[in-house]
Amino acid sequence: MTTLLKNGTVVNVFTGVLEKVNVLIEDKKIIGVGDYYQEADVICDVSGKYICPGFIDGHVHIESTMMTPYNFAKAVLACGTTSVVADPHEIANVCGKDGIKYILSASRNLPLCVYINLPSCVPATCFDQSGYQLTASDLKPLYNEQRVLGLAEMMNYPGVIFNDKQVHEKISDALKLNKIIDGHAPLLSGKELDKYIAAGVQTDHECSSYKEACEKITKGQWVMIRQGTAAKNLADLIELFEPPFANRCLLVTDDIHPSDLIKHGHIDNIIRTAVSLGKDVITAIRMATINAATCFGLKYVGAVAPGYRADLLVLDDLEKVKICNVYSSGKLVCSNGTLCEFEKPEIPQELLKTVTSTCHVCELTVDKMKVGSGKHICRVIETVKGQLLTNEKHCNIDFDQNGGICTEQDILKLAVVERHHNTGQMGIGFINGLGLKKGAVACSVAHDSHNIVVAGTNDSDIVFAVNAIIKMGGGCVAVNEGKEMCALPLPVGGLMSDQNAQIMSQSFEELHNAVDSLCQKAESNPLMTLQFMSLPVIFENDKHGAC
Amino acid sequence: MTTLLKNGTVVNVFTGVLEKVNVLIEDKKIIGVGDYYQEADVICDVSGKYICPGFIDGHVHIESTMMTPYNFAKAVLACGTTSVVADPHEIANVCGKDGIKYILSASRNLPLCVYINLPSCVPATCFDQSGYQLTASDLKPLYNEQRVLGLAEMMNYPGVIFNDKQVHEKISDALKLNKIIDGHAPLLSGKELDKYIAAGVQTDHECSSYKEACEKITKGQWVMIRQGTAAKNLADLIELFEPPFANRCLLVTDDIHPSDLIKHGHIDNIIRTAVSLGKDVITAIRMATINAATCFGLKYVGAVAPGYRADLLVLDDLEKVKICNVYSSGKLVCSNGTLCEFEKPEIPQELLKTVTSTCHVCELTVDKMKVGSGKHICRVIETVKGQLLTNEKHCNIDFDQNGGICTEQDILKLAVVERHHNTGQMGIGFINGLGLKKGAVACSVAHDSHNIVVAGTNDSDIVFAVNAIIKMGGGCVAVNEGKEMCALPLPVGGLMSDQNAQIMSQSFEELHNAVDSLCQKAESNPLMTLQFMSLPVIFENDKHGAC
Repeated sequence: MTTLLKNGTVVNVFTGVLEKVNVLIEDKKIIGVGDYYQEADVICDVSGKYICPGFIDGHVHIESTMMTPYNFAKAVLACGTTSVVADPHEIANVCGKDGIKYILSASRNLPLCVYINLPSCVPATCFDQSGYQLTASDLKPLYNEQRVLGLAEMMNYPGVIFNDKQVHEKISDALKLNKIIDGHAPLLSGKELDKYIAAGVQTDHECSSYKEACEKITKGQWVMIRQGTAAKNLADLIELFEPPFANRCLLVTDDIHPSDLIKHGHIDNIIRTAVSLGKDVITAIRMATINAATCFGLKYVGAVAPGYRADLLVLDDLEKVKICNVYSSGKLVCSNGTLCEFEKPEIPQELLKTVTSTCHVCELTVDKMKVGSGKHICRVIETVKGQLLTNEKHCNIDFDQNGGICTEQDILKLAVVERHHNTGQMGIGFINGLGLKKGAVACSVAHDSHNIVVAGTNDSDIVFAVNAIIKMGGGCVAVNEGKEMCALPLPVGGLMSDQNAQIMSQSFEELHNAVDSLCQKAESNPLMTLQFMSLPVIFENDKHGAC
Repeated sequence: MTTLLKNGTVVNVFTGVLEKVNVLIEDKKIIGVGDYYQEADVICDVSGKYICPGFIDGHVHIESTMMTPYNFAKAVLACGTTSVVADPHEIANVCGKDGIKYILSASRNLPLCVYINLPSCVPATCFDQSGYQLTASDLKPLYNEQRVLGLAEMMNYPGVIFNDKQVHEKISDALKLNKIIDGHAPLLSGKELDKYIAAGVQTDHECSSYKEACEKITKGQWVMIRQGTAAKNLADLIELFEPPFANRCLLVTDDIHPSDLIKHGHIDNIIRTAVSLGKDVITAIRMATINAATCFGLKYVGAVAPGYRADLLVLDDLEKVKICNVYSSGKLVCSNGTLCEFEKPEIPQELLKTVTSTCHVCELTVDKMKVGSGKHICRVIETVKGQLLTNEKHCNIDFDQNGGICTEQDILKLAVVERHHNTGQMGIGFINGLGLKKGAVACSVAHDSHNIVVAGTNDSDIVFAVNAIIKMGGGCVAVNEGKEMCALPLPVGGLMSDQNAQIMSQSFEELHNAVDSLCQKAESNPLMTLQFMSLPVIFENDKHGAC
């Protein structure tokens, strides 16, 4: 089956030049670029339109979209993304190797090409109580999968620098197999950065300043310019879109919510934003295509040229990245915003069972929430607006009043309930700054181990919320006076739902509204803050440290 | 063991910027680039000097230097080349898989990193009588060798375009293993080029015009700018040293003689020549380093950056590429023109025996040279000065006079004697344009099958010359009146000698002088012309064709 795209203007990512040439596709690949006129089964006149390669997201956690790969694919294909490099870090923390196998299985033969980098840090630190630990020998056999490109973000940079044996074993395995090693080292600089890079770490997606990025590029790393939902680095890194740095950068989202995908787009949105900030659209497209392919050693991907996989976009407008048609491996998968149907990959029953039964925990009872009596000065976690970092605060807690909770002072009870191995373990503390005035909020998305995190204004609602999560088999819930106000089930690993982006976006909005209604005034996303309160790699404000 | 290069200026090939930074080496790799002052076992002050990555020759036939890998390494390391991608096409035609294994073995653990691309066309055409045929299944197991990067120059482009099964099997094997496929398609353009590239061919080293190179780069190929002994394309391709093409080019020699290596240099000479033609030295260095590494997917090679193999050069002068020191994998291997001793790789006896007994042919007798009687109009090969292409000419040959030879008309007898399997086969013809007035010249380097080629002024000297080659076990010889005037033994495959570049260069000069003395006037290298007369892929002038 051959298709000819006629009379369009092709973005040549090798030369950066726009070319009036016709593009001939046979089956899955481009076989000609030039003077072809009639030699095809299907001839599409794309006069006045542009043709560019499909976009590549160089680093994304699919789980952060709360969608399974099938619906994730639908959402991003519509945005012109035809390949992603996914790091299944979240599901691996919950389900171990089976989590990775699930993502591989659930993304097999999708029109979105899902490459995988293996999570390097499961658990993220030795303080974590995750579902599984992944050792070097756990990871090694997974490199045999063709779509596995390397080792994902090596966030344990102290482990790299101070020669942790397990960390170096993982790196060494990847190096021996000629695989890529993705980095994650915010603010690392100078000699420590040298040591980290010298271990073999080839990329970084944590740059938050131009200076940081320039140092990393100068020292040989590929810099991934990240613009996701939580972390937005594009504006600060915008000068990377100029020589001599542009050809060593790619575009990534890292973590992106379905509502952002729907409202703003995916990689296409990063390109549009770069253009709106005055940068050249072709430079941005090169970052999103051939640069990503080169960084990951993907041959025959990321360009409109003979022999290349026919992942390409027909654009109505180049600078606005207005997508008309999306072709993936030669097939038209999205036409004027309408997605073509494609098959949902079949997942082995055993695997599906594993990833959909991840709340291994008994129902909670209110008596477990009692942590003391009398009045004491206690340490309290103070949240910082717009940041994941927190402060340590010391407050007077009266344990005999509402279990120590004081909504007047915005001191809530916070608990993390182990859910992976029914250990019965639970951490209870106090948190200031969430703003809840009534009820409780709980969630099984709680970085990075994804136990159940809950915060509430009374023990009874806290317990109700946790038990609601357990009943759902994972998800998020807002509770008030012993009633479920709103629930978002996330049955796959307690992280993802099988719903599509529209439904997920809407459900998430409803949940947010419910959470907001528990607060006296509009707060800055207490649910998201909550999801990161269990993350041991985020420290007290102004304190850097190693695990 | 650590070494610090202090106070130098580093050529950063990622950014193209010159940087005043110190370089810290530990064992085989660079571990730091920046503010290092004392932290090393050996501290070298390189004030006023430049540091750049070691050069990479992206396509070379080691056999064409007539030196074995050990002496080839010595010659090119002194020129700052620390890696080459070699295609053992010549020895494979003589010894098959064992020829490739010999090159792998003879280049193991040299301070020059010898990567191998597997010869794709052995024999070069179906008309050839080479020592061996290499099928796809012969090549496949050789990809397991770590230094084997891909499939070498696919010169059978008609086979690619017209779907030859064996050709496509070889390509398909390389593609499945994610290997590179080198091209060789002079003047191929338009739809035929598209079809050739679409099969997966990623490079080309045959461009002889800027226009040809631009088309190939635009269509996604890496263009290798070739400047060797026979083919010199640099001047014609010099505009490729500008954007947007420069970052898709590399520098190669293809075929280079030892005298050129000694007199002019290797990749360093190409860079110097580009600079003398007005081009930017850093652009040229990038082509010779990171571009080549990127093209071949070589990680941690081709840059002065943490984690990279410490292949680097200290230059006294950047634009003149005046090499002071050469480091290979962190070891100083050449200092101010003086090479450090290094071990000669041990070659398994069996393999060595195979490659040093390649003249499987009985002594020739004069009666075999008689091809007719009486006078006849015969086809004669007419050589064309400065070209490998020839013309067909028709001359009156008197077979009863000196066996048909007529030195007055410069019509000599030419013969190709099968030497691989003692088939007794011999092709005899007549050649015009070599210019010999007496004696005979013979050689076991005769592209691409490397049978014994001989041309002479009388049957007796012709036979003497062939027998001299057989006795030597391969080589080149000039003969007159039944005496050996000068002989250059090439015992390894009849292609290479174990002598070093200086000796080879001198011996070759002596041979040339001897050949010249057989001519009435100075001719343009009759020996080299002779070596290509047996090449079936070089056609009659102005006729293009497929095998």
